[in-house]
Amino acid sequence: MASTNDKKPPATPAPASIVPDANTFDPGLPASKTSASNDSDTQLNCPFCHISSTFPSYSPLSPPSPFPPSTSTSPHPRTFLLLSTPLLVAFLDIMPLSPGHLLLCPRRHAAKLTDVFSDEAAELGKYLRILSEAVTRATGIKDWNVVQNNGAAAAQVVEHMHFHVIPRPGLREAERFTSTMFGRGRREDLDEEEGEELAGRIRGCVREVVREEKERERGRKAKL
Amino acid sequence: MASTNDKKPPATPAPASIVPDANTFDPGLPASKTSASNDSDTQLNCPFCHISSTFPSYSPLSPPSPFPPSTSTSPHPRTFLLLSTPLLVAFLDIMPLSPGHLLLCPRRHAAKLTDVFSDEAAELGKYLRILSEAVTRATGIKDWNVVQNNGAAAAQVVEHMHFHVIPRPGLREAERFTSTMFGRGRREDLDEEEGEELAGRIRGCVREVVREEKERERGRKAKL
Repeated sequence: MASTNDKKPPATPAPASIVPDANTFDPGLPASKTSASNDSDTQLNCPFCHISSTFPSYSPLSPPSPFPPSTSTSPHPRTFLLLSTPLLVAFLDIMPLSPGHLLLCPRRHAAKLTDVFSDEAAELGKYLRILSEAVTRATGIKDWNVVQNNGAAAAQVVEHMHFHVIPRPGLREAERFTSTMFGRGRREDLDEEEGEELAGRIRGCVREVVREEKERERGRKAKL
Repeated sequence: MASTNDKKPPATPAPASIVPDANTFDPGLPASKTSASNDSDTQLNCPFCHISSTFPSYSPLSPPSPFPPSTSTSPHPRTFLLLSTPLLVAFLDIMPLSPGHLLLCPRRHAAKLTDVFSDEAAELGKYLRILSEAVTRATGIKDWNVVQNNGAAAAQVVEHMHFHVIPRPGLREAERFTSTMFGRGRREDLDEEEGEELAGRIRGCVREVVREEKERERGRKAKL
């Protein structure tokens, strides 16, 4: 079943060598009056602020169990959450270019990369690595792009800065993913059941990667 | 004058919605026997390890003055350095897609984003923000893409992980840059004089941004 969103994709990854077509821009999803608070850190019209204000943070080492099912608050689409820390949230793209296509953004509203604080920027870098490793394990796809767009001329659609992590299946792997038109950039609505299952798998891998990282860092410090 | 490199571009940013063409891949620049040492942190054949081993680190707050001119050690092309910290180096792309197109990578050899250490990942995130702000100020171009490619299916060419920061001039701005075919992705050799001048301007802006950031962080801490 297709997910409930009836909107255009919230964000288009950078076609780095293509002129962004102004006609494909989406002015953003309509505001939810029940969702984002109106303080300086959230924007009423911003779908990613809606997600940030919907999900409390949890330690990636101990996600809630059982994990609450993906929620939908009309007019916002369902959110398949992957990570929710005090500074950041990550979730599946609702119109993925490939299985595991995810978005990572600061919890606080920041339009462009230059609008994030230094500690948020460092956390984004740290979790880009962790999420890349987790999505690789969860999907078995070994290659991927990281893309982040700033401003209309760079094809930014949702004006809450976010990184895309986009797995790139090779031709052999692509055969396994019938719903993926490899390399064509065709986007389909994320299937609800598939999304739930994939998000659970990625969260499990995030937990594993964070645990391994903590052990490795302990080992490195012990050596010094 | 065109720069001295006679090779294909060292890295192609992710054409996120285009099949990477295997025929455009570059097996890498030839090894410089006089450059990279052969320890576990550097690779003899890697052009970015060559850069890392050529340039010692300096504080971005006090770059050497006068700054040493860009160096070239055949067969490696000239390097227009922008940043050199204990963990990271950044420099202008030698075949830029737009003015200010730069690369940021860990000093230590790491093939993919998942191969960097946690502290390197955090520093990459932090300096992506700083370099984005600096290149925006230095070029006056307000929109930009951040792109990072992992593996052949994702169009990675140089196997030393690196982020691209690619300014995206709007149509009005693009008229000012005669050498740029906006949006076509055409790449030209970086002009030597222009490169030297632009790199100096970006380093000045990096210094300014880092100084402002330190002041802001001091202010935030004083408030707590």
